[in-house]
Amino acid sequence: MLSRRDLDFLLYEWLRVDELTKRDRFAEHSRETFDAVLELCEQLATRYFAPHNKKSDANEPQFDGEKVTVIGEVKEALDAFAQADLVGMGMDHDLGGAQLPMTVAQAAFAWIAAANVSTSGYVMLTMANANLLAKFGTPEQIETFVKPMLAGRFSGTMALSETQAGSSLADILTRAEPQPDGTYRLFGSKMWISGAEHELTENIVNLVLAKIPGGPAGTKGISLFIVPKYLVNDDGSIGERNNVVIAGLNHKMGQRGITNTVLNFDGAVGYLVGEPHRGITYMFTMMNEARLGVGMGAVALGYTGYLKSVDYARERPQGRPVTAKDPTTPQIPIIEHADVKRMLLAQKAYVEGGMALLLYCAKLVDVQHSAETDAERDAATLLLDILTPVGKSWPSQWCLEANNLAIQVHGGYGYTREYDVEQHYRDNRLNAIHEGTHGIQSLDLLGRKVTQRGGAGLAALGAAIAQTVDAANAAGGDAAQLAPRLSATWERLVEVTAAMFASGDIDAALANSVAYLEAFGHILVAWIWLEQVVACNGRTGDFYDGKRQAARYFFRSELPKTGPQLDLLAALDRTSLDMRDSWF
Amino acid sequence: MLSRRDLDFLLYEWLRVDELTKRDRFAEHSRETFDAVLELCEQLATRYFAPHNKKSDANEPQFDGEKVTVIGEVKEALDAFAQADLVGMGMDHDLGGAQLPMTVAQAAFAWIAAANVSTSGYVMLTMANANLLAKFGTPEQIETFVKPMLAGRFSGTMALSETQAGSSLADILTRAEPQPDGTYRLFGSKMWISGAEHELTENIVNLVLAKIPGGPAGTKGISLFIVPKYLVNDDGSIGERNNVVIAGLNHKMGQRGITNTVLNFDGAVGYLVGEPHRGITYMFTMMNEARLGVGMGAVALGYTGYLKSVDYARERPQGRPVTAKDPTTPQIPIIEHADVKRMLLAQKAYVEGGMALLLYCAKLVDVQHSAETDAERDAATLLLDILTPVGKSWPSQWCLEANNLAIQVHGGYGYTREYDVEQHYRDNRLNAIHEGTHGIQSLDLLGRKVTQRGGAGLAALGAAIAQTVDAANAAGGDAAQLAPRLSATWERLVEVTAAMFASGDIDAALANSVAYLEAFGHILVAWIWLEQVVACNGRTGDFYDGKRQAARYFFRSELPKTGPQLDLLAALDRTSLDMRDSWF
Repeated sequence: MLSRRDLDFLLYEWLRVDELTKRDRFAEHSRETFDAVLELCEQLATRYFAPHNKKSDANEPQFDGEKVTVIGEVKEALDAFAQADLVGMGMDHDLGGAQLPMTVAQAAFAWIAAANVSTSGYVMLTMANANLLAKFGTPEQIETFVKPMLAGRFSGTMALSETQAGSSLADILTRAEPQPDGTYRLFGSKMWISGAEHELTENIVNLVLAKIPGGPAGTKGISLFIVPKYLVNDDGSIGERNNVVIAGLNHKMGQRGITNTVLNFDGAVGYLVGEPHRGITYMFTMMNEARLGVGMGAVALGYTGYLKSVDYARERPQGRPVTAKDPTTPQIPIIEHADVKRMLLAQKAYVEGGMALLLYCAKLVDVQHSAETDAERDAATLLLDILTPVGKSWPSQWCLEANNLAIQVHGGYGYTREYDVEQHYRDNRLNAIHEGTHGIQSLDLLGRKVTQRGGAGLAALGAAIAQTVDAANAAGGDAAQLAPRLSATWERLVEVTAAMFASGDIDAALANSVAYLEAFGHILVAWIWLEQVVACNGRTGDFYDGKRQAARYFFRSELPKTGPQLDLLAALDRTSLDMRDSWF
Repeated sequence: MLSRRDLDFLLYEWLRVDELTKRDRFAEHSRETFDAVLELCEQLATRYFAPHNKKSDANEPQFDGEKVTVIGEVKEALDAFAQADLVGMGMDHDLGGAQLPMTVAQAAFAWIAAANVSTSGYVMLTMANANLLAKFGTPEQIETFVKPMLAGRFSGTMALSETQAGSSLADILTRAEPQPDGTYRLFGSKMWISGAEHELTENIVNLVLAKIPGGPAGTKGISLFIVPKYLVNDDGSIGERNNVVIAGLNHKMGQRGITNTVLNFDGAVGYLVGEPHRGITYMFTMMNEARLGVGMGAVALGYTGYLKSVDYARERPQGRPVTAKDPTTPQIPIIEHADVKRMLLAQKAYVEGGMALLLYCAKLVDVQHSAETDAERDAATLLLDILTPVGKSWPSQWCLEANNLAIQVHGGYGYTREYDVEQHYRDNRLNAIHEGTHGIQSLDLLGRKVTQRGGAGLAALGAAIAQTVDAANAAGGDAAQLAPRLSATWERLVEVTAAMFASGDIDAALANSVAYLEAFGHILVAWIWLEQVVACNGRTGDFYDGKRQAARYFFRSELPKTGPQLDLLAALDRTSLDMRDSWF
């Protein structure tokens, strides 16, 4: 599903996460505890999550008008995960968590996502929900809802979208009426709620965005509520059913194993989280983590498809070398064909690049959580903010492309449900949509992250890249050969960015925001590849040679794709902007 | 499903197919008969094919161990098509065909494919089968098998691949033992046989590649046989069951409505088509048509997804202009957002470009069939030969990307089976695999078509492009503005091609054959867009403005993508070639 060898390289040889144990927050950990959790997740993934991946795809959750049934293997897997005390693996000790670095927790959880992205979704949502409440909830809310989530008794959802308000959260209509007892009653309807309505856990903790009447218009008038499926008695036991009902299930192209529903609230009891009208701020703290989680899910699916297609290519004999003329010579394994190598190498470059990018982001979260100075924390935040839209969108695009190539390597077999890769492709297609579409990420990057704090994020990134280039030049060899191309492309990006904003034509600048996101993403991944090549410096052997070759591939076949995109951006191209509705 | 306005433009304003009626072969036709068949196919598509598209996706053919059951609507649609005398629409009058130009027949059939690509597959295979037998079969074979196919009583399949021989046909193992009565007995097994085994027609005519013992090795020892499901009595009535049985059905990601099977031959009676050992030649005559059929199927799926996403974008309100700050203003339809326009414009550029490319190819077939001089026929053949790999692969890649964008325009809804576009995406994914994968097309183009007859195909294409450029310069306006970019890119391609072969390093030249195919394809589609802009010259109105804008989009956002590909090719990049198995 994943390569432990690669994870070890990324975690220990490149990111040196073992050094995090020198910091107070992670002082109780060691490489041994990190390895133990990586191994545990690999085992759980293999034993509980992977075996029902196909089955849950072919047997979607069923709603009979009263309750939703999910195949039994899902509960077994979730219970095994919770019983291993993994739900809180990144959370604080005093909440009962293992307080692992996010870098390690993300790498470990990637095994679960690679094995079964749908079933892993129940866990991921519960973790995100618990994280949010741990940060913004009252001690009572933590006691009542977070601790049972960590124990696996409760699960969580995030209820943001409505049928008329997906990307545009400002337009949600769900309202929360305050009650004399300090609680609220919620009225309205939520759409696309993953993990809602099932009997996998004793209770479901829905985190719901709603408007308290009289608040400001738009996103500034949105508050956040806990709306559990069942009310919880004072002693922690399950009380009466809340007025949260589902209208039915959505039927998706992929990720079919996880429930996805319309939730109706008809006077449902809700508990305010934090202060009124601050819901979006709280949700976005979680959302940024969720976006990186989506990116990692995309990487995990790409990675598992890549490894399966390498295995297939080694075993499948077909054809002869292009220059061979004698039809009586034996067929060769398709991995010997240059074009198959290309498709495998491209996948390797995408999935290992994506994994490295996401682990780099996770390490920035760890620095935020463990830094000894404000300056260090601030530097990490600056970088993480500007990396997040790319960490979400780049793998959603390119690890999907990896899955596309994995199908192609398998030929006709890859197009059948008898093999795994077509499901990975279907499953992965969701990732460019949920938690903010590709277009939304591009506006977040270009319309917000690039300009905020006077461009400090872009400058911080430039400094980080310059540091890598220096290290590459010092290392010599491949690293030094690749470095100038990265520098030149990055400089061009910075120039083009400045020119776009200098033009004053914000409409034209933002019209090609997706081209910007894509170019930006490819440059960042080139940087991450150069980082890896530097980390390989002086090492010999197949593993390191493979890394170097994948980096070469990325620099030769992928990075140049940014040239035409930057040209388009520099020209402030108005072709899409000027297109009229009546011309379609 | 398709735009009749666009088809009218392409057929009459651009390709001037009505002028074909001046030629003997099409003398009985007129614009009225062409319009009638276009309208008829649109009606049949709407009434019989589209309504069960989702149903046949959700209810795949079932095999109970004895027979295969297909939902009833498939037979109704096939019967309606046959009863309208359309199976032979492109075939000769003396066979009972309508002898329509292929250009018109392809455009008309595209409605059927757009409505329901699976059900259309049964017809397409029958047409291809009948065409092949009409050309290479004996009068008796035509009487026995072709005429019932045209009448809709029989259907056809093409049985080429085997489990161990997909792309590599040289390695097929099915053998045909000659019998004293002149027939053969076939032994072996075929894989991926679409349209085999069902009860939709009285009989199924399988065209099977097999080796007669003692023949040459490789593809030169392959012969072609008719192996019907039921033998046919001398009076044309259905006789006994032949020894052709299925081992089971394949279960695909998409195109689920058409049976796809493993066929076992255990002494099945077969009738040789043409001469022994010439099977590949016969099959490739058909295969080239089938490849263009696959390309048109990809276009049809892309086109219908495009139109659906335009409709959705017009109706779906979401968000406000990027520069609007007031959250109380009403939401705007998403078609007003620049990035949504981009996604629609890209789709338009891909699907209308693809449609134009395929109709251009179809017209070349018509010229082959109706030319008055050998020189004219030869010129058409040269062009068609070099266009075919692109006509197959380009839409399979870019009209799939159109479907990807159609999902993205729909947001979360597009990912559900409640909407149509996810099925189009799944259905379309097959097209880069069957009838020769993307990689196979690239080797056909670069390893064969570009070099054959001393590069005459490439030269012919260059002359055609130069002619368009001249016309564009004469037309002025947009056409003249775009023309130099096409010329420059084409010249670069020609230079790079020459340098690749001059290097003498065939392995390196062919290692990046897919980059070549993709660059070549984009340049050709730019040419086809320039052709359309020239045809729009002097015309005003939304339709023509839309064409011009789509052409601008293609030249600004798509054509430049060829730059990095040509650079890679010019460098004879060895990155993939040098990758070692042990480095993955």
